[in-house]
This record gives sequence, structure tokens and C-alpha cells, in this order.
Amino acid sequence: MQEILDASTPGDWRRLDPKNTVYLELDAGRVVIELAPGFAPAHVGNIRTLAHAGYWNGMSINRSQDNFVVQWGDPAEDDKDRKSLGKAKAKLPAEFERKAAGLDFHALPDRDGWAPQVGFAQGFPAARNPEAGTAWLAHCYGMVGAGRDTAADSSNGTELYVVTGQSPRQLDRNITMVGRVVQGMEKLSVLPRGTGPLGFYEKPEQRTAIKAIRLASDVPKKERTALEVLRTGTPLFEELVEARRNRRDDWYKVPAGHIDLCNVPLPVREVAKK
Amino acid sequence: MQEILDASTPGDWRRLDPKNTVYLELDAGRVVIELAPGFAPAHVGNIRTLAHAGYWNGMSINRSQDNFVVQWGDPAEDDKDRKSLGKAKAKLPAEFERKAAGLDFHALPDRDGWAPQVGFAQGFPAARNPEAGTAWLAHCYGMVGAGRDTAADSSNGTELYVVTGQSPRQLDRNITMVGRVVQGMEKLSVLPRGTGPLGFYEKPEQRTAIKAIRLASDVPKKERTALEVLRTGTPLFEELVEARRNRRDDWYKVPAGHIDLCNVPLPVREVAKK
Repeated sequence: MQEILDASTPGDWRRLDPKNTVYLELDAGRVVIELAPGFAPAHVGNIRTLAHAGYWNGMSINRSQDNFVVQWGDPAEDDKDRKSLGKAKAKLPAEFERKAAGLDFHALPDRDGWAPQVGFAQGFPAARNPEAGTAWLAHCYGMVGAGRDTAADSSNGTELYVVTGQSPRQLDRNITMVGRVVQGMEKLSVLPRGTGPLGFYEKPEQRTAIKAIRLASDVPKKERTALEVLRTGTPLFEELVEARRNRRDDWYKVPAGHIDLCNVPLPVREVAKK
Repeated sequence: MQEILDASTPGDWRRLDPKNTVYLELDAGRVVIELAPGFAPAHVGNIRTLAHAGYWNGMSINRSQDNFVVQWGDPAEDDKDRKSLGKAKAKLPAEFERKAAGLDFHALPDRDGWAPQVGFAQGFPAARNPEAGTAWLAHCYGMVGAGRDTAADSSNGTELYVVTGQSPRQLDRNITMVGRVVQGMEKLSVLPRGTGPLGFYEKPEQRTAIKAIRLASDVPKKERTALEVLRTGTPLFEELVEARRNRRDDWYKVPAGHIDLCNVPLPVREVAKK
């Protein structure tokens, strides 16, 4: 894989857009999330508003369930104790799917069990149903979703989770996905597992404090993390996928000839600041 | 799922065999591993010999690579500094596959991309090629394998890894799998990620000490962890798989109608000691 990346040209990479980039600031450092407005415009809009207002600052990561997700948000159990949403909307539509029309979707060569087609769109692992004309984001490692209650439209973007375990693809089309962690997953994946139901921490002091969640565009340029993500719709990316489908190094005795969507790496690199 | 387990009878469960059970003792507590002699008899034989002799006691977990594996063994880099294998064999055959004949294999209803058939055998996630008449264990979360160098037969069971990330099924049939963590995964999955190549720790003090690795049959009965594992070849287990293929609770709006091998839970319970 490194050989392929070494052969990449500047055009194979894209710079993260600060308006679509969120920094989750922990004592352990920064986690960088790329938002997916192309799939969840209403949720991303709310997340931008909430981050801009400092909604999550001083809140905490309240849940870490082994082989599943970590999750943060307002830990208050009673509605009356919850922090005000300020200018953010209290109610959003469910954004489980979008129209496939107009979406630049690059399908993987291999069949998937969960969806008619899988591949990448706008840099995210995604799925598509050509018959229904729909597309949606897939629950791969590092993907970020908006927690909800039983009603499909009960998420407002305040309660966010990150996949830290075996891809729970059964959640696809059941919940609104809002983006992906592009740097810092190892700060979330090591969080002690909560011992309460669903991996929630039983004692407040077990939670991990959130110093701040900020939109990169609200952060002074010199404090931003300058990241580039490999484009997914290029010949180079196809070459990378093929190199992972059939490993060519001497260590592998039986190349798989296959790859699952969530096994495809999505390279990210830091770039020198100007 | 809990409803199905609540309806189980004692015959739906099997007690772990102490001769096939290994305890990895850490400061954080005990990790319980079930060995798979039906798939890797030579490696399991060596692991029993090594554990019996206390080979790993005082060694360490030397590697934690995010979304991939943790790994332990002798951290010595030079062969001359390595601990003696004692009565264990220095050389073992590669045990990547076994004959499918004679193996009680229960296939899942869904197609898999990595293998002609997948399902469960002897309680482990496994795959089968009916044409070739072969079967092998699958790299799902919690599965344990024997690290090797480039030569297929270069593993001896001293260097063991546990899958902590998205199932790296490309490793199937490329490395000998020896068992599965049945309890205590959350003690391994939270280990800080190593910052060296492949997630190895760069400083010795970053490693996690191994107090002991013991065969349960070498441990006094009252100190054993009494565990039962749900049998995988039963009508109850099929019911459980179906309940996970199509979630019936109100939360799910679009049941997947599918499950991947590595998404099937393998329930374990502690039983009261007599």
C-alpha cells in the first residue's frame, strides 16, 4: 500500500473543508471528524450550529461498549436538566438514505451481503440500491452516527456515536450517519468499556471529559490540523483496493481475491502548513 | 436475544474443557481463551506445553495496532536472547486448513464474500470449501492466531495475537488460528495503541505485563472461571442467528435480512461453582 501512496500525485488527495470538519478535543488530544453534508444535510447543519455555540464543551463521552461504539452527548437523564440547544433545531428529519441520482458513486468489484452495491461516495464508505435509486452511508469502523430513540426522526445531532468494533451494518438505513473520524480513532477506541447496560458508564467520574467540540472553520488557521484524505474515485484508489483484494507480498500464501467494504483503508495524511 | 437465551435449556450450553482453556492473567484481570485442537492440534499441543511450563509468565503484550490486533510473546529481538522453549517443539506444521470431512459444520444462511461457505464448527466461526473439502477458522473479533514470519510453517505458538478490530478475513488460510477469547476481550481491546511500526510499543515500559498464562487444567478447581458457551449447532442457536438477521424490536425500521459471520454473537455465561 505504501508503494501505491508513494506514487500518488497531489491531485489524488483532497484537503478537508474546514466547514465540514469538526474537532473533538480531549485531554488525550484531538479527534478529527469529517462531516457528510451530502448525506445528512439537516444533521450536519445542526452539528455546525451546536459546535459553533460550544454546545458540547464541558460535556463527556458517556458510553463505550466493547466491539460496538463510543458515544457522547448530554449526560442528563431528565429532559428538564438538559442543556439548551440554543439556535439548533430540536427536531430533524431522519436522513437514513438519500437519492442516488447525482451522487458520484464508485462501486467495489465485490458483492456485499448487506446491500445491492457498496463502494465509496464523497470519500465515505457507502451503499446503493440501483433499483430503488437510493444510497446511504455504511457503518464501518470510525463512522459517526446520530443516536436516536425509537422514533425514526428522534435524533437531533446532539448525541453522537463512533463505531469502534466489527462493522454493525445492521444499523445501515436505520439511523442517520453524519461523518467519519479521519484522525485520532485510537483516542476513542481505547476508552475503558462502561459496565452499565449498553456500555454506559455507571459513575459520572468514569466518563471522559470533552474539552470542546469545534468546527474547524471556527478555529484560528494556525491551530487547525491540516489534513488531506485520499480521493476515492481515482485510478490510484482502484489500484489500492486491488492491492488489498489480492495481497502481493511474500507473506500472503492465499490472496483473498475479495475485500469487504469496511476493510478498505481510507488514507489520511498531514500536510505542511503554509 | 436475551429472550432467546432465557428460553435456553442446559443442553443448549457446553462447559469449557479445562484442557482446552487458557487463562491470560493480567493486572487488569483474567482473559479466558478457548483453544481449538480440532483445527490446530499441533499448535494447541505446543501451547499446552508452553503454558504448563510457565513459558509466558513475566513476558508482556508487545503490540496493539488500532483496528487490528494485540499480540504477546517474547519481546527479545535477538534469537540468542529468547527464552528457551523447554519441552515445546521449535517447529510446527502450518495448520491453516483442515479436512472438512468429519467436521460438524453448521452453515449460515447468507453468502460470504471471502469463502464459499461460512458458519460455525466446534463453537468457532469457520469457513468451508465443499469442492476442495477443506475448512478453516475465520478471523473474527476475539479470535486468537499464532504469529509467523514469511515461511508458512514458521509459527510455533509462542507469539499469539487476538483480533481487536474489523475482521481481517484476508488473513484466513494464511496463518494458524488457535482459539478464541471467550471472556475478557475488554481487557485487551482497550490497551493503548503502540506508536511503532505495526503497533509495536516503542518503549519496554509501555508493554503490558503478563503475570501468567496457565492452562485451566493446571489451575486449582476453585480458582478456575466456570464458563459455559452456547452451542452453535442447535435449533436455539439458529433462532438466535435469525433474530440477529432480522431484528424484530421497534427500534429497527429496516431489518437487514442478512448477517456476516463475524457479526454473530457467541454467548458465554458464568456458572455457579458446585
